[in-house]
Amino acid sequence: MADEKRITAQSEDFDRWYTDVVRRAELADYSPVRGCMVIRPYGYALWENIQRALDDMIKRTGHENMYFPLFIPESYLQKEADHVEGFDPQVAWVTRGGGKDLEERLAVRPTSETIICSMYADWIHSWRDLPVKINQWCNVVRWEHRTRLFLRTTEFLWQEGHTFHQLDSEAAKEVDTMLDCYRELTEDWLAIPVIKGRKTESEKFPGAEYTVSIEAMMSDGWALQSGTSHHLGQNFTRAYGIAYSDRDNQRQHPFQTSWGLSARTVGAVIMAHGDDMGLILPPKVAPIQVVVVPITRSNDEAGAATVEEATARLESECPAGVRMRIDRREGMRPGEKYAHWELRGVPLRIIVGAKDLAGGNVTVVRRVDGAQDTVPLDGLAAQLPQLLEAAQQAILERARKRLEERSVDVSSLDELVAAFAERPVFATAPMCNTAECETAVKAAVHALTVRVLRSDRPSDGAPCIACGKPADFYALLARSY
Amino acid sequence: MADEKRITAQSEDFDRWYTDVVRRAELADYSPVRGCMVIRPYGYALWENIQRALDDMIKRTGHENMYFPLFIPESYLQKEADHVEGFDPQVAWVTRGGGKDLEERLAVRPTSETIICSMYADWIHSWRDLPVKINQWCNVVRWEHRTRLFLRTTEFLWQEGHTFHQLDSEAAKEVDTMLDCYRELTEDWLAIPVIKGRKTESEKFPGAEYTVSIEAMMSDGWALQSGTSHHLGQNFTRAYGIAYSDRDNQRQHPFQTSWGLSARTVGAVIMAHGDDMGLILPPKVAPIQVVVVPITRSNDEAGAATVEEATARLESECPAGVRMRIDRREGMRPGEKYAHWELRGVPLRIIVGAKDLAGGNVTVVRRVDGAQDTVPLDGLAAQLPQLLEAAQQAILERARKRLEERSVDVSSLDELVAAFAERPVFATAPMCNTAECETAVKAAVHALTVRVLRSDRPSDGAPCIACGKPADFYALLARSY
Repeated sequence: MADEKRITAQSEDFDRWYTDVVRRAELADYSPVRGCMVIRPYGYALWENIQRALDDMIKRTGHENMYFPLFIPESYLQKEADHVEGFDPQVAWVTRGGGKDLEERLAVRPTSETIICSMYADWIHSWRDLPVKINQWCNVVRWEHRTRLFLRTTEFLWQEGHTFHQLDSEAAKEVDTMLDCYRELTEDWLAIPVIKGRKTESEKFPGAEYTVSIEAMMSDGWALQSGTSHHLGQNFTRAYGIAYSDRDNQRQHPFQTSWGLSARTVGAVIMAHGDDMGLILPPKVAPIQVVVVPITRSNDEAGAATVEEATARLESECPAGVRMRIDRREGMRPGEKYAHWELRGVPLRIIVGAKDLAGGNVTVVRRVDGAQDTVPLDGLAAQLPQLLEAAQQAILERARKRLEERSVDVSSLDELVAAFAERPVFATAPMCNTAECETAVKAAVHALTVRVLRSDRPSDGAPCIACGKPADFYALLARSY
Repeated sequence: MADEKRITAQSEDFDRWYTDVVRRAELADYSPVRGCMVIRPYGYALWENIQRALDDMIKRTGHENMYFPLFIPESYLQKEADHVEGFDPQVAWVTRGGGKDLEERLAVRPTSETIICSMYADWIHSWRDLPVKINQWCNVVRWEHRTRLFLRTTEFLWQEGHTFHQLDSEAAKEVDTMLDCYRELTEDWLAIPVIKGRKTESEKFPGAEYTVSIEAMMSDGWALQSGTSHHLGQNFTRAYGIAYSDRDNQRQHPFQTSWGLSARTVGAVIMAHGDDMGLILPPKVAPIQVVVVPITRSNDEAGAATVEEATARLESECPAGVRMRIDRREGMRPGEKYAHWELRGVPLRIIVGAKDLAGGNVTVVRRVDGAQDTVPLDGLAAQLPQLLEAAQQAILERARKRLEERSVDVSSLDELVAAFAERPVFATAPMCNTAECETAVKAAVHALTVRVLRSDRPSDGAPCIACGKPADFYALLARSY
């Protein structure tokens, strides 16, 4: 690169800004393997924090983790017709193993419904065996022609939950419970407000009765789908012969759900909060929450000792659970260190210098808004949890404000076109859940998609912006990653 | 199965006992995918506890987690000659993806040295970039013709650590540090004593300078290798063109290590401690540490109320960090419940019955030795951490005692043969590290292997049991899984 230091400005080219930040902050990088990425330690630590938070929610709601094979025989994949049609073009096939050509090709799992159903056909016999509520953290592979770090890669990391229930209504409740976990993770941990709703028929999971998702606004006004939950009805349980004897000894097929959230949420964090200096990480998932930069001058030994003493005190008084890093690197100017940690989105920076310390103070700088405070060293460490909580809230409020400012209601195709004339927005419009109306709406604005049929905006009979008949839904319309 | 309830006795057929326990305790099961297993919730929870303990050690020793691609292009795999020769027969190949035949085959990673070296060739430039100390938790695939749940499967879960250093001696130290983490995990958490040493030339990792491992004795006297650590020298860094400028601005190849521990450690826990009733789990990694079984009779309402009160008290007083389960299942006899939890190896069982409670007592049964105590309910919950620690020690001592009883020193091939006449043992003998002597020793006893050249028994010049010349090592000789 001509200038290694420079990040493309968001206003200049948002896509290049994104890639610059991901690579320069050492979150991830392209690999020599087509479509696959390497997640570097800083990016992986962020993902681990997200995983830990979501795993706790998954267990709290009564699910257990387990692990199914990476490989799925072709014949197993093919039992549910819509499913195989949806995934077949994206499958990577193993055709040779142990020095021999295989008799049956093995799919590298694009998702695990088929292998899980094959196993549970043997394990579910009676109503006493239900519900089954399990989850797995794993890698999956879906062949991609255009890739983007974290957002779209041939291999990606995710969790996939799978459940079986006696009643349709229980399955429907499970679908909502898990979407709400995703909402909780995204809003309360990642500080990104979301909109919930149902996918249209054309966008639902292959083989599902219906799919619900949460949609988040990135700082360029585009949408990112950040977690999906599917009601699979009895489509797979019939196809895979999963049946149980109910309390009346009648043979029944259970109702099934599946739900997933992937490491693309790391991309959501980057694009929802980042600015031209780099990442802005919500404290709850930031690998480093507080960085302490001691400032010493080589010609001031007494000052250096005071600074080191104050730094050591912050380190030793740091409350358990606060992730603090001391930056004692030599041979770097303070400004370089500030830029280093700003790029990496560390929520709070504490500058410890002799001048401030003469008055018993240090300087605290907040990444999200650059707010700078001179505060007494005494008691600062103990206040860090509250300062981090305040930073978390400030990041969430900033994202909420943007979502509000860039959301608009439209009641005609003309208004829709006008709404997108200046910049991408989240438009909400009455719409029918039909392929015809969806096609007409998408054609009105370049690259527009129907994100969801909003669950928070029940229909009031307003006319569909495509066909003019009373619409059953309010649709969220946006460009999307 | 004719009799679902029966586990094969260890003395009758140890292999069948093993498979019975794994399946009946619902740790894992065979899958319809050749060579691949499903890890069920109870087995996965055990693995998660092992992972958590080891991950803490990996981080404590200064390593960071990251993630590399599942797929490795054939040309990358082939750069280190010994490595590709060692792994090629076991590789699963992806030849088709995204609806097209691939121009270059992709190996499903059997281990990640090659892809990691390819990336670090771009990332390491200066001595300031060293050491690199990273780790990844992932799945790997090595085609197996004979599989055994947890112990040998085509796909398995593991961690693989990879480091780069300026000095040979630093790399050697890293190799030892990580082997010692594996020893700590296996002895202090899994309660299995181990023997450390170096693999012979024929058994070292393909492409390594040398390999060290820890070896554990299973309860049938066979050995299980439970973690390996490799000094890779500059073999890969030369082959992959990884070089840095040292402090004198000279171009150097770094020294490299790798080390791994897999979910086969779950198999070690099963085979080292289990008995004819099932699993015996060390409390530190047991998914459930204490099970409370309330005993009520349908014709004794007052008794039932007292029992429920005592049970609820245990539940509410259970110290944080103690994993307790209350078994309130209806329609099961107490004996069935006892057998259920014995099969699953829960370290402590508390039986709460009206008769004991009349005297203010409950009964505590320890899984490892069946020791049964009537103890006051008052204060019992608070004592659980100590009781669990005592159970952990009792399990370790039992394993230590077996290792001592079944270890024998031999000074000739005749003594070696005699040592194995009755039952498999761990034999220690002076031996040269040459292919000839190894072959001769292995030929003396059916299925014998040289486990390691012991690092705790330096050579004293005693004659090699194969060639009679002064031997450089004491070798640990055993049959192995």
